[in-house]
Amino acid sequence: MQISARNALKGTVKKIQVGSVNDEVVIEIASGVEVTAIITKSSVENMQLSEGKEVYAVVKSSDVMVAID
Amino acid sequence: MQISARNALKGTVKKIQVGSVNDEVVIEIASGVEVTAIITKSSVENMQLSEGKEVYAVVKSSDVMVAID
Amino acid sequence: MQISARNALKGTVKKIQVGSVNDEVVIEIASGVEVTAIITKSSVENMQLSEGKEVYAVVKSSDVMVAID
Amino acid sequence: MQISARNALKGTVKKIQVGSVNDEVVIEIASGVEVTAIITKSSVENMQLSEGKEVYAVVKSSDVMVAID
Amino acid sequence: MQISARNALKGTVKKIQVGSVNDEVVIEIASGVEVTAIITKSSVENMQLSEGKEVYAVVKSSDVMVAID
Amino acid sequence: MQISARNALKGTVKKIQVGSVNDEVVIEIASGVEVTAIITKSSVENMQLSEGKEVYAVVKSSDVMVAID
Repeated sequence: MQISARNALKGTVKKIQVGSVNDEVVIEIASGVEVTAIITKSSVENMQLSEGKEVYAVVKSSDVMVAID
Repeated sequence: MQISARNALKGTVKKIQVGSVNDEVVIEIASGVEVTAIITKSSVENMQLSEGKEVYAVVKSSDVMVAID
Repeated sequence: MQISARNALKGTVKKIQVGSVNDEVVIEIASGVEVTAIITKSSVENMQLSEGKEVYAVVKSSDVMVAID
Repeated sequence: MQISARNALKGTVKKIQVGSVNDEVVIEIASGVEVTAIITKSSVENMQLSEGKEVYAVVKSSDVMVAID
Repeated sequence: MQISARNALKGTVKKIQVGSVNDEVVIEIASGVEVTAIITKSSVENMQLSEGKEVYAVVKSSDVMVAID
Repeated sequence: MQISARNALKGTVKKIQVGSVNDEVVIEIASGVEVTAIITKSSVENMQLSEGKEVYAVVKSSDVMVAID
């Protein structure tokens, strides 16, 4: 499947923190660069996510903000 | 300012594509790893964004989806 | 690609309204039931969207609100 | 109330899955076509949602992505 | 219509900045406190928005971030 | 840090409702005008939020909808 979201960052699952409804999935997209996603428990199970698995962190460009110090 | 959004990815502005209302800002967050943000023209001007400037790509963890091949 | 977004509604492109930066894509997901997406012009071109093409309208469950009369 | 969100899909509550903070509300918008919303428990109570109730699934067009196989 | 979005801030349209696809609507929700919304041109027309009109700024609680100095 | 989100509404934390994964933070931005944010528990802890603390409610203008009666 190809999707209109502009950002599909390839990476590896580093950690999954289990919650009651949602889980936190930490994805390493480059050495020392991590992205945290909060997705539903059922999505984690459906995609059989586990540490070390290759995934994409997908973000719409309109959901990315820019900040400066 | 510190913000509740979980992801603040440090990077450098690589390209700014000017639009009528919104501009596309491409940010390099690691060698060969880019994130595209669409923000309003006035935000680009207020923060005086230009190529080479150090910025953060800020994304709420609930706005990050996970995908697998 | 499989994605964590819970809603992937199969449908057909009914109309594409071209804008300067974004295009409006109207998708018929059932007889008389339409969903409108606003995506970037480049996404429309990359996926070669045109009227009649089979697509999915993808929405995160946390982006769906519920209303009553 | 009339709202600027472009998509207001009329349907019927098919299932409500109770969570600790959020509930999952499955809405049938056409025969065999379901949309899942995650909204707060208090919203479910305030609107007295229950199976069979007529509701709208409301989604901003900028929150709808398009995907192809 | 009653909606699951938690924040419905009553206010008055102070300014509408017309764009090509989207318009910027500035809403005064308390003396000196303004909220800016970007909505589609067609929504502005459908709701016949104009300066001085009474409106609500509607925001899902999951779309509100918190920041500190 | 300066951020591209257009709305940064200064206010005071009025109430924090603790959840399992997320907390609800009610912010008073003007006399009698409240905004509710749902953010992760870890964000509340990292920013040491408590009742009476001065904060900003930050919202992207594209996440603000407009409604009329």
